[in-house]
Amino acid sequence: MKIWQKNIDVDTFVENFTVGNDRAMDLHLAGADVLGSLAHTQMLHSIGLMTAEDLASVQAELKKIYKDIQAGNFEIEAVVEDVHSQIEMLLTQRVGDAGKKIHSGRSRNDQVLVDLKLYFRTEIESMVSHTEGLFRQLIKLSNTHRDVLMPGYTHLQIAMPSSFGLWFGAYAESLVDDLHLMKAAWQVCNKNPLGSAAGYGSSFPLNRTMTTNLLGFEDLNYNVVYAQMGRGKTERILAQAMSSIAATLAKFAMDVCLFINQNFGFISFPAHLTTGSSIMPHKKNPDVFELIRSRCNKIQALPNEIALMTTNLPVGYHRDLQLLKENLFPAFQSLKDCLEIATFMLQHIDIKKNILDDPKYDYLFSVEVVNNEVLQGIPFREAYKNIGLAIEEGTFSPEKAVNHTHEGSIGNLCNDQVVRLFEEAKSSFGFEQVEKALADLLAD
Amino acid sequence: MKIWQKNIDVDTFVENFTVGNDRAMDLHLAGADVLGSLAHTQMLHSIGLMTAEDLASVQAELKKIYKDIQAGNFEIEAVVEDVHSQIEMLLTQRVGDAGKKIHSGRSRNDQVLVDLKLYFRTEIESMVSHTEGLFRQLIKLSNTHRDVLMPGYTHLQIAMPSSFGLWFGAYAESLVDDLHLMKAAWQVCNKNPLGSAAGYGSSFPLNRTMTTNLLGFEDLNYNVVYAQMGRGKTERILAQAMSSIAATLAKFAMDVCLFINQNFGFISFPAHLTTGSSIMPHKKNPDVFELIRSRCNKIQALPNEIALMTTNLPVGYHRDLQLLKENLFPAFQSLKDCLEIATFMLQHIDIKKNILDDPKYDYLFSVEVVNNEVLQGIPFREAYKNIGLAIEEGTFSPEKAVNHTHEGSIGNLCNDQVVRLFEEAKSSFGFEQVEKALADLLAD
Amino acid sequence: MKIWQKNIDVDTFVENFTVGNDRAMDLHLAGADVLGSLAHTQMLHSIGLMTAEDLASVQAELKKIYKDIQAGNFEIEAVVEDVHSQIEMLLTQRVGDAGKKIHSGRSRNDQVLVDLKLYFRTEIESMVSHTEGLFRQLIKLSNTHRDVLMPGYTHLQIAMPSSFGLWFGAYAESLVDDLHLMKAAWQVCNKNPLGSAAGYGSSFPLNRTMTTNLLGFEDLNYNVVYAQMGRGKTERILAQAMSSIAATLAKFAMDVCLFINQNFGFISFPAHLTTGSSIMPHKKNPDVFELIRSRCNKIQALPNEIALMTTNLPVGYHRDLQLLKENLFPAFQSLKDCLEIATFMLQHIDIKKNILDDPKYDYLFSVEVVNNEVLQGIPFREAYKNIGLAIEEGTFSPEKAVNHTHEGSIGNLCNDQVVRLFEEAKSSFGFEQVEKALADLLAD
Amino acid sequence: MKIWQKNIDVDTFVENFTVGNDRAMDLHLAGADVLGSLAHTQMLHSIGLMTAEDLASVQAELKKIYKDIQAGNFEIEAVVEDVHSQIEMLLTQRVGDAGKKIHSGRSRNDQVLVDLKLYFRTEIESMVSHTEGLFRQLIKLSNTHRDVLMPGYTHLQIAMPSSFGLWFGAYAESLVDDLHLMKAAWQVCNKNPLGSAAGYGSSFPLNRTMTTNLLGFEDLNYNVVYAQMGRGKTERILAQAMSSIAATLAKFAMDVCLFINQNFGFISFPAHLTTGSSIMPHKKNPDVFELIRSRCNKIQALPNEIALMTTNLPVGYHRDLQLLKENLFPAFQSLKDCLEIATFMLQHIDIKKNILDDPKYDYLFSVEVVNNEVLQGIPFREAYKNIGLAIEEGTFSPEKAVNHTHEGSIGNLCNDQVVRLFEEAKSSFGFEQVEKALADLLAD
Repeated sequence: MKIWQKNIDVDTFVENFTVGNDRAMDLHLAGADVLGSLAHTQMLHSIGLMTAEDLASVQAELKKIYKDIQAGNFEIEAVVEDVHSQIEMLLTQRVGDAGKKIHSGRSRNDQVLVDLKLYFRTEIESMVSHTEGLFRQLIKLSNTHRDVLMPGYTHLQIAMPSSFGLWFGAYAESLVDDLHLMKAAWQVCNKNPLGSAAGYGSSFPLNRTMTTNLLGFEDLNYNVVYAQMGRGKTERILAQAMSSIAATLAKFAMDVCLFINQNFGFISFPAHLTTGSSIMPHKKNPDVFELIRSRCNKIQALPNEIALMTTNLPVGYHRDLQLLKENLFPAFQSLKDCLEIATFMLQHIDIKKNILDDPKYDYLFSVEVVNNEVLQGIPFREAYKNIGLAIEEGTFSPEKAVNHTHEGSIGNLCNDQVVRLFEEAKSSFGFEQVEKALADLLAD
Repeated sequence: MKIWQKNIDVDTFVENFTVGNDRAMDLHLAGADVLGSLAHTQMLHSIGLMTAEDLASVQAELKKIYKDIQAGNFEIEAVVEDVHSQIEMLLTQRVGDAGKKIHSGRSRNDQVLVDLKLYFRTEIESMVSHTEGLFRQLIKLSNTHRDVLMPGYTHLQIAMPSSFGLWFGAYAESLVDDLHLMKAAWQVCNKNPLGSAAGYGSSFPLNRTMTTNLLGFEDLNYNVVYAQMGRGKTERILAQAMSSIAATLAKFAMDVCLFINQNFGFISFPAHLTTGSSIMPHKKNPDVFELIRSRCNKIQALPNEIALMTTNLPVGYHRDLQLLKENLFPAFQSLKDCLEIATFMLQHIDIKKNILDDPKYDYLFSVEVVNNEVLQGIPFREAYKNIGLAIEEGTFSPEKAVNHTHEGSIGNLCNDQVVRLFEEAKSSFGFEQVEKALADLLAD
Repeated sequence: MKIWQKNIDVDTFVENFTVGNDRAMDLHLAGADVLGSLAHTQMLHSIGLMTAEDLASVQAELKKIYKDIQAGNFEIEAVVEDVHSQIEMLLTQRVGDAGKKIHSGRSRNDQVLVDLKLYFRTEIESMVSHTEGLFRQLIKLSNTHRDVLMPGYTHLQIAMPSSFGLWFGAYAESLVDDLHLMKAAWQVCNKNPLGSAAGYGSSFPLNRTMTTNLLGFEDLNYNVVYAQMGRGKTERILAQAMSSIAATLAKFAMDVCLFINQNFGFISFPAHLTTGSSIMPHKKNPDVFELIRSRCNKIQALPNEIALMTTNLPVGYHRDLQLLKENLFPAFQSLKDCLEIATFMLQHIDIKKNILDDPKYDYLFSVEVVNNEVLQGIPFREAYKNIGLAIEEGTFSPEKAVNHTHEGSIGNLCNDQVVRLFEEAKSSFGFEQVEKALADLLAD
Repeated sequence: MKIWQKNIDVDTFVENFTVGNDRAMDLHLAGADVLGSLAHTQMLHSIGLMTAEDLASVQAELKKIYKDIQAGNFEIEAVVEDVHSQIEMLLTQRVGDAGKKIHSGRSRNDQVLVDLKLYFRTEIESMVSHTEGLFRQLIKLSNTHRDVLMPGYTHLQIAMPSSFGLWFGAYAESLVDDLHLMKAAWQVCNKNPLGSAAGYGSSFPLNRTMTTNLLGFEDLNYNVVYAQMGRGKTERILAQAMSSIAATLAKFAMDVCLFINQNFGFISFPAHLTTGSSIMPHKKNPDVFELIRSRCNKIQALPNEIALMTTNLPVGYHRDLQLLKENLFPAFQSLKDCLEIATFMLQHIDIKKNILDDPKYDYLFSVEVVNNEVLQGIPFREAYKNIGLAIEEGTFSPEKAVNHTHEGSIGNLCNDQVVRLFEEAKSSFGFEQVEKALADLLAD
C-alpha cells in the first residue's frame, strides 16, 4: 500500500493529500466568492486598474454565475483546485482576458478571508433565524402551560414546586444570552479583510473603504497583518458562539430524555416521533433528542479543536488553516437541523397534568407553607418548627397551590420581557443593512 | 491510609472532601456578598419584611464589613463553611437578631449567583483596563516603529516586506475583536439573578426590579429557572472571552520567542529581563514570554474544562458547580498578570534596524517590483517575466523601499482608526453606570 | 496597580511571575529528588568524578534529608527558587564542598525529568492501590446483591431486567480496562531520562545504565533529545490514564445521583452521609457523588489542557513546561480522594429490594417471555405475536424471574474472571522490583 | 425552509436527521459484520439454535459476501438503514429463511459492539504498520546522518551541539512510547462483547467463550452491562492512543517547518515536493508538513470531543453514541495518510552539512570546552572562569567537535536498542494469533 513501493503517481498522492476535502467545502463559498469579486472589480475600475468595458462584461458574467450558484447549477470540476479557480476559469472562458484581471491587487489569501466572512455572515443570520424559531415555540409553550405545575429539583432531588411555564421559558431566555455571543461573532465577521493581500498589503492604491461599503461591512480589518490573523480566530469565535446555543439545546435535550423516562413520565410525544417496539409498547425511545444532544455536544467540542489547530502558530498564513473548514462548515447545517427539529418536536409535545397529585411530591410544598405562615405574621422559627413537626407526625397535608408574584416567578413569568430582550438582541445585528448592500451589489 | 481502617473522623473526611478549596475561593466573593446584602435588605424593607431600625443597623454594619474587606482585614474562619456564613455570623454578632433576617426571601443559591455576577463584573472591568494598557503600548510601538521594515512570512517562508508598525499594530487590533467577546460576557453577567431563590422563586412579594437598579444591573435574569441555569453557563462564556484575549497574547508571545531566537534576531530585551548564562553570553532565554504563552494556553483550555464539567447535567442546581471556581478565579489574576508584564516588557523591547539589508531578504521585494512596473504601464505578464529572468540570472537587485498607501498598509497604518474601534468597544460596556450605582449603594 | 507606575521592585515582579506556584508544587518532588541524587552520585563515583569520601558523606546526608522529607520536616525556603536548590543548599551547608559536586554531569533539565518520573511512579502505584480498593468493594457488592433485580435501561427507557450484581460488577470491570491505560503510562514513566543533561547529553562518560538499575527503571530513555521530549508528553499520557479512571467514576456517580433521586429510588445512604434539610425530610442531597462527578470531569479535561499547552512547541526545552505541574499534581490527590470516598460511601449503600414488583416494570420481561417460548419450541414469530397480543389486551402478566446462564449474565456474573483480569493487570506493573530497587538505594 | 411550513414529508425529515451519515460510516464495518455473523452462527449451531444445513448455507453465503466486500463490490442501498440490515437482507434474499435466524440471541447493540471492536483491531494493526514505516525511516536517517551536527536549542535559544542523528532518532523513540498507549487501546478492543445483547444479556444459553475463540479475542468483556459500557469508552481510549502518535508527528512537522525556514535553513526538499513560486524562487512552502501538523492536531482534539459527547450519560445505551463514528472513522485514514506521506517525504529530505561553521554557533561549544578542561583535571570553577574570560575578550575559538560517549548521546545513539524497544512493543500485540483465528473463520 506504500506509495513508493508501487506504481502510484507521487504527484497525485501528494496532491490528494494537500487538497483533501477542500473542494467539497469550497462549494459553500461559491456565492460569497462572486460577491467579493463584484466589489473588488468595481473598486479596481474606480482606481483605474480596470476599464469600464472590462468591468461591465465581468460584472454581467459574475451575476450570471451567482444565479447559477443559487439555482444549484454550479460545481467545482475535478481538475480545478478550488472554488476561486473555478469561478475565474468560467469567467475567462466567457469574457476572455478581462476575466484574468480580477485578481489584480488581490491574493488568494484575502480572497479566502473575505469569502469566509461573507459566508459566515450568511450562516449567522440563518442560525439566528432558526434560533428565533425555537425561541418563539418555547415562549408559546411557556405561556400555554404557565399554570401546569411540575416538581423542581436541586441536586436532582425533589425540592420546590416548579411549572412547565418556568421550564420552557427558562430555555427561551437562555437563547437570549446565547445571542450576545453570536452578536460578538457577527461583529468579528462583519469587518472587511479584502485588500490585505497575502497579509502584507499591496503596492496598488486600493480603496478598501469602497469595498467595505459595497459589501455591507460595518468596518475594516484595518491592519493587513491583523486581517490575515483573523483566519482561525474568526472561526474559533464563531464556533464558541455556536457552542453556546448548542449547550442550551443539549441541556434541554437531556431534560427531555429524563422527563420522558417512565420514572419521571412528565412529557411524551406521539408514537411516530419516537422509536418504539411492538413487543415493548412502553418504550418510546427519544432518538431525536438523543441525537440533538449528541450533535450539540459535538459542536461544543469545536472551539477546542480549532484552538488546538491554531495554537502556537506564529504570525502569518499557514496551510494548517485550510483544515478548519472540515468540521466547522458541516456544523452550521447540523446546528440548524437541531434547532429546526427541536422546534418541530415541541409542536407535538404532550404535557402531563396533575403530576403533583402524587403524594411523593407533598414535601415540595414545605417551604411554601412555612413562608406563607411567615407572611401571615407567624415568626419564622415557629412556623418552621410547626411544619417540621407536622411532617414528622405524618399530618402534613399542604394545599398544592403556588402563589408567587415576583418578576420571573411561576405566577409572573415576564415572558413579554424575555421576548423584548430577544428582539433587542436580534435587531442589534443589523441584518437589513447587510442585505440591502448585497442586493445593491447584485442588482443589474 | 484508608479512612475506615484508621481512627480518622469520618465526618471530617467527608466535610473536607465537600468543602475542598471553597473557602479560599470564596474570599474573592466577600465584597460582592456585602453588596448583594445591602441591596437585598433595602428591598426587604421596602416590602415590609424588615423594619427601618433593623435596616439601619444592618446597613451600617455591612458597610463597615465592606471597608474591612477592602482593607484586607477579613478572613473566613476555619469553623465557618463559606463567605456567606462568615458575613452573616459577623453581622449577627454585632447587630443581633436583625442580622438573621437578611436571609429572608433569599436562598444560598441566588446569593451565590448574584455574588458571582458582581464579582465577574469587577473582574471584567479590571481585565478590560489591563487589556487597554497593553493595547496602548502596542499602538505606541507601532507608531514609533512604523518605518522599520521586517520580513513578512507566509508558511513561515520569507514572503513579502512587512514592518514593525504592522506587527505591533496587528496585535493591538486583535485585542479590539477580543473585546467584542468580553462585551458579550459582560452582558451575560450584567443581569440580576437575585430573587430566584433556589431556582424556583419565592412566595415573598420580592421586588426584583428594585435590587436590579440598586446593584446597577442592566436588566433581570427574569425566569427564575433560567437564573439558576446561568451558573456554569456564565462561567463558560466568561472563560471563552478570556480565552480570546489569551489566544492573542499567546500568539504574540510565540512570535517574540521566535524573533528573539538568534536565527531571526529581530528583537531583544535588556539582559535583566531575560535569563542568561555567564558562560553562554548569547543566551537570552525569554522566560517571561514563554510563561505568558503557557499561562495563556492554559486559559485557552478553561472553556472546555467548564463544558466538560457541566455538560449533560439536567435542569436545576448541582453541587458540581462549586468546583468551577477553582481554575476560573485564579485565571483572572493570571490573565491580568500576563497583560501587565507583557506591557512592561514591551516598554523595554529593542528593535533591530536594517534587517532587510541582509541579501537573504532580497526576494521579498520581487512582487513589489512587478507591481510597480505594472503601475508604470508594463503589462503584468511581461513585468513578471522580466523579474523572473533577473532573479534567475542573479541580477535582481531591488530597491528596498515600500510605498504602500491603502488603508492598513505599511505606509498608512490607520492606527487612529484602530484606537477609535477600541474606544468604541470599551465605552459600550457602560462601566460608569455600574460604578455609580455601587457607589450610591455604599454611600453612608 | 501597574508596576511601572509605582515603586514596585521590577525584579521582584518578574521573579514572582516566573516562579509562580512552583515552590509549592516542587514540594511533591522532594523525595524523588533525593533518590535521583543518591543514584547519580554513586554513578559519579563509579566513573571517577567523585571520591569515596565525598560519596560517603553525601549519601549519608541525603538519606537523612530523605527521612526528614518522609517525616514532613522539609520545606523550601522563600529565598530559594526550587526544591533542587533547597536540597543542594542543605547538603552544602552540612557536608561542605562535596555537596556542590553532585551536579556534575547533570543539568537542571534532566534532574527535573527524573524527579518527575520517580514521582509519577509513586503516584501511579498509589492510584492503582486506591483503584483496587474501589474495585474490590464493587465486586463485593456485586456478589452480595447478585440476585437483586433492577430495571435495565436503553435510551434511558425501561428495557430489560438487570440486577445490582450486574450494575456494580460492570463498574468493577470498567476499572480493569482503565488499568491498561495506566499501565501504558507506567511504561512511559518507567524509563530513565537521567544523563540527558539539557537534552543534548554530556561530554562526561556517564554510565546511564547504572543509574537506570539503581533507580529501578525498566529501561532507558536512550536518545537524549527524546528524553527531554518526554517532558509534557509523559504528563499528557499520565493524565489520559487518569482521565479513564475518572470517566468510570464520574459515570458511576451520575448513576448514583440518578438512582438516589426519588423518581427512581433504587438506592439510599444513611442520613449522615448525605445532606438533608429538617424541613424537607425527603431530601438526601448526594453531595459527595456530585463532587466526585465534578472532580472527575475536571480530571477528564486535563489531557486536553496539557495538549493545548504543549502543541506546536518545537524540539527542546521551553519554560512553558513548568506550568504543567499546577493542575496535574493536585489531580493525583483529587483522584485518590474520589476513589477513597467512593469506596467508603459504597460500604454504606442501601439497596432497595423488590423494585420490579412495581407494575410499571412489567414490560421489562416481554423479551424474556418471548425467548423462553422460543426455547420451548414455539417459532419466534408466533411467540412474538402471542406476547404482543397479551400486552395489547392487558393480560400480560410475566413471571418476574430471570434465568440467564451465559458468561457475564445475571445468573453467571463471572466475577471471579473479572478479579483474575484485575490481578493480572495489576501484577504486570512490577511494583515490587521498583520498591526493591529503591529500598536498596536508601539502605544504610 | 421550515418543515412544518412546507410540503416536506415529516417522516423523511426525521429519518434523515436520525440516520445522518451513518450509512457512509457503516461501510467501514461491513467486513467485521460478516466475521461476527460467521462466529455467531457457528455458536448458535453448537447450542442447537441453528441446524447444520442452515449453518452451512449461511456460512457459505457470508463468505461470498465477505469476498465481495474485500473486492469493493458492496454497498448499502438507500432504502436500507445500516450495514447490518443490508447484509441480513442479502443473506435472506439468497438463502431464504435461514438468513433470518442469524439474529437469534443477538441484538443490534452487541452486533455493533463486536463490529466496532473487530474493525478497530484491523485499524490498529494497520496504524502500527504505518507507524513502523515511519519509525524505520527515521532510524535510517538517524544512522545515516549520525555525524552531522546541528545546533541544539533550549528556550528556542542556541544552547548546545546536537546532531541530525539525535534529531531523527528522538522522534523514532517517541513512536515507541506511543505504541504503549496503542497497546492499551488494543487490549481494550481485544475483548469480546458479543452475547451481551442489548446490554443485559440473553435467556438463550449462549456460549460466549466459543465466539471469543472463533474471533481471536484475547478474553471476554464478561459483565454484559460493562460490555455495553465499552461503547464510547473504547472509542475514547483508541482516540487517545491515536492522539499520541499524532502529537509526535505534529511536533516533528513543526520542527520541519521551522528548519526549512530560511532563517534556519537546516533542511530542504526537492522542488516538486514543496510549493513554490516562479517569482519568489526562494519560497519552498512546506504544505505537506503544514497539513500533517494540522491533521494531527485535529486528531489530538478527538479524545476530548468523545469525552464531551459521552460525559454524564447514565448507564445503558444511548443513541448519542452513533455519532462517535463520524470524526473517528475518517481519522484512521487521516493518521495513516500522515504517517505514509511523512515517510515518503523523509525519503527525499536534504540535510545541510557544516551548519555549525557559521560563527553564530560558536558559543554552542562553551559548555563542552569547560567540561573537557574539567575532565583534564582543571577544577570546574577555574575552567569556567577561563572560558568566560575568553568569551568576553573575543578570543574564544572552540574546536567544533563533540566527543560524547554515554548511552543515547551524539557519539553513541543506541539506535539498536531503540529498534529493540520498538520490536518488543510491536510483538506484544499478538497480531498473528488474531490473523490466524480470522483466517480459520473465513476458510472454506
